[in-house]
Amino acid sequence: MKCLKYAAFFLASGLLATTATAQNVTDSQQVAHITNEVLLHGTAYQNLEYLCKKIGHRLSGTGAEARTRTWAIQAFKEAGADTVWLQPVMVPKWTRGKESLKIRKGKELITIPMLSLGNSEGTKGKNMEAEIVCFETMEALKNAPEAMLKGKIAFLNYPFPAHFPCTFDGYSEVGGNRYNGPAIASRKGAVAFVIRSLSTGVGTYDLPHTGVMSYGDAPYKIPAIAIGNAAADSICKWVKQNAVRAVLNSSCGMQEDVLSYNIVAELKGTSGHYITVGGHYDSWDVGEGAHDDGAGCVQSIEVIRCFKQLNIKPKNTIRAVLFANEENGAKGGRAYADSALSKQEVHVLAVESDAGGFSPRGFSLEMSASEVQIVKSWKEVLLPLGLYDFAREGGGVDIDPLRKKLKTPLAGLMPDTQRYFDVHHCEKDVFEAVNKRELHLGAASMAAFIYLADKYFN
Amino acid sequence: MKCLKYAAFFLASGLLATTATAQNVTDSQQVAHITNEVLLHGTAYQNLEYLCKKIGHRLSGTGAEARTRTWAIQAFKEAGADTVWLQPVMVPKWTRGKESLKIRKGKELITIPMLSLGNSEGTKGKNMEAEIVCFETMEALKNAPEAMLKGKIAFLNYPFPAHFPCTFDGYSEVGGNRYNGPAIASRKGAVAFVIRSLSTGVGTYDLPHTGVMSYGDAPYKIPAIAIGNAAADSICKWVKQNAVRAVLNSSCGMQEDVLSYNIVAELKGTSGHYITVGGHYDSWDVGEGAHDDGAGCVQSIEVIRCFKQLNIKPKNTIRAVLFANEENGAKGGRAYADSALSKQEVHVLAVESDAGGFSPRGFSLEMSASEVQIVKSWKEVLLPLGLYDFAREGGGVDIDPLRKKLKTPLAGLMPDTQRYFDVHHCEKDVFEAVNKRELHLGAASMAAFIYLADKYFN
Repeated sequence: MKCLKYAAFFLASGLLATTATAQNVTDSQQVAHITNEVLLHGTAYQNLEYLCKKIGHRLSGTGAEARTRTWAIQAFKEAGADTVWLQPVMVPKWTRGKESLKIRKGKELITIPMLSLGNSEGTKGKNMEAEIVCFETMEALKNAPEAMLKGKIAFLNYPFPAHFPCTFDGYSEVGGNRYNGPAIASRKGAVAFVIRSLSTGVGTYDLPHTGVMSYGDAPYKIPAIAIGNAAADSICKWVKQNAVRAVLNSSCGMQEDVLSYNIVAELKGTSGHYITVGGHYDSWDVGEGAHDDGAGCVQSIEVIRCFKQLNIKPKNTIRAVLFANEENGAKGGRAYADSALSKQEVHVLAVESDAGGFSPRGFSLEMSASEVQIVKSWKEVLLPLGLYDFAREGGGVDIDPLRKKLKTPLAGLMPDTQRYFDVHHCEKDVFEAVNKRELHLGAASMAAFIYLADKYFN
Repeated sequence: MKCLKYAAFFLASGLLATTATAQNVTDSQQVAHITNEVLLHGTAYQNLEYLCKKIGHRLSGTGAEARTRTWAIQAFKEAGADTVWLQPVMVPKWTRGKESLKIRKGKELITIPMLSLGNSEGTKGKNMEAEIVCFETMEALKNAPEAMLKGKIAFLNYPFPAHFPCTFDGYSEVGGNRYNGPAIASRKGAVAFVIRSLSTGVGTYDLPHTGVMSYGDAPYKIPAIAIGNAAADSICKWVKQNAVRAVLNSSCGMQEDVLSYNIVAELKGTSGHYITVGGHYDSWDVGEGAHDDGAGCVQSIEVIRCFKQLNIKPKNTIRAVLFANEENGAKGGRAYADSALSKQEVHVLAVESDAGGFSPRGFSLEMSASEVQIVKSWKEVLLPLGLYDFAREGGGVDIDPLRKKLKTPLAGLMPDTQRYFDVHHCEKDVFEAVNKRELHLGAASMAAFIYLADKYFN
């Protein structure tokens, strides 16, 4: 493209300023100040680089998770937080250890890239060999007779539903397969569960994507693993030709719960009430947890930095929280809400960013109809940031307990979703997959949203 | 992120289908069919891979440009076009040749990555050495006395305005600097013009970005070049310390005009009128012209494929046009409009995609107020694709002559803009910078928009 004649967004909002009410003038101008500050001087991107490259992935209970706390306390102080402290919480500790999956093809053993699912038990480091039974849908697995699965490996080869414009709609459809599949297979006597990864990846087509599973009330804690799309295609094809046997060896398993902490920073207000903004700092043990959810962490720090830098004095205390243990227990969010409940804190709003550091499009909302109306009254003011979509429900895993226990209104930053499941829970979720402008525009969106909520929510 | 409770977009539009008017039911369903078809079976991404990797960049008048025509004719036939033909047009031919920029630092000569600006003349392969005068703004350059620039190299070090949420607003502010800067410097007696690249790049911080310039009525056709942000920072710092001399050597220059062609494919309608959809197939001679504008080309081919596959019989003939020579002459677009005018064709609408293969957000419009109202009446139907923004003006460089000569209503696909000027006109505009889902969602948006326009525009 050579040249353009677009009417400038900011000219348009300048125009708005001269024609709209005084209240809108101020809000639009303040949102423009916030946007300028974050896009020109934001430190979220350099914070993310440190978190990803100097610390790396940070599963609950690991040394990296502990090092994240040391770094975050410093980062919050540099951002200008009035106080920073650690809120203790016991979290599950799961370890991966060595693992391998091999397919017996004649005399050959073909190694398949794989990842055990989080919270799964392994084979205790011993080879387990069994025949693979392939299912194209979850329904087919549920309807399979026990005789078909007894002593076999259940393989669910259902592809990520790619036809939804919003990839989270695809993920919603299949996320339960990964979570509940192992228990269903176990109840039918399967000795292991293999799932085609929940992945939209093209460049990452052969990478396995991990994620949490649960045994529920399953009789046996059978090993549960994910394989990449390309491997899934191949194995399915082989199974159609001949009986295929696989050799699985893994050492993963749950350990004793350990002590961890939510990281909490405050910018003090005067009302005695709170607005929470956060993301989770734990991540899966592959990649660098850049989009999931390093992005949400550094954006939350940026909200504090931006408010401080622009000398915005919030009515309510702004609490930026980096939650512990979202991925395999969600204990951090529960501990935070329990604490708020026991201290009889009033929480005006909680906002979470946990859908990736991509270009923002809106906020999902979980609040009363009248509160939704307040948010929708900000539409014109937020539109210059590319925020238009307030129609979805939900807040976020970590803030959800605040709703359940304190009836806190919730909002979740909703970025563009096209690339999230290319990198989600796999080794490609690294710093390089995050674009600086996209990350910062998301941070500006959170700061603007919280600025307005602080003013108009009570 | 572990799980989500978002209300599904498609469930929402399904609900709409049962409550809205019969017309909306059909339109929403058809848009869903188009979306499914493109997201599940689209070939735009594989076409783009061929164009980028087998042909590569394709400046007007090159062999690669000619090979693109052979490929495109075949691609259109495979997509199911009723006819494909070539529309001749004479285009300027500019060649780069060898080029280098070196900074004299004491006894050292430091090589600076650089690119001559398109349509610039060079130094005829001879070393030109002169002192650099640095300007922080275009105003400063315009106001500089001639004595300050006589025999010197004018260096405009104005950074890309990064504070606009829409990067095209930043580009609009500085695009003229690159286009007009060389003439302004020439009129003041400068012997060369150097510009800090129009680039938002972080990972591409030191890469020069080329683009078109014009001498206008300048007395001398002085060499004009771009350097990367990092080099610009360094040179500016050095100039502040001491007088800095640079040695420029370049062989670029304009050749005789040559014969090229627009590539035109049709899906026949019954009304005798036309809807044009297109992008330009020429590109700068660095990178692979993936976002600019391979994306627009393969999306236009996809519109034909999708209509054919879904057996959509358009009222108007759908013309997919891959325009020649957008980058350094815009001759293709003019020839197309001239031909339409001379044949007294009625063009109902023209749509261009030339802002990158990123996630779509809306269409810019250049049409009458009543036509804008028709487009805005489709908002609910297009929203599931993430299309919400119809407030910007403009169509596209290649379809602009249709408006000027035939008063054709214009629309331009408007994708997310955050990453465009990271890669624009530089060596990083390659296939790998394009995401399959984003590209295909843009193609689906164009097909949906054209489906509605074919039905409701007259």
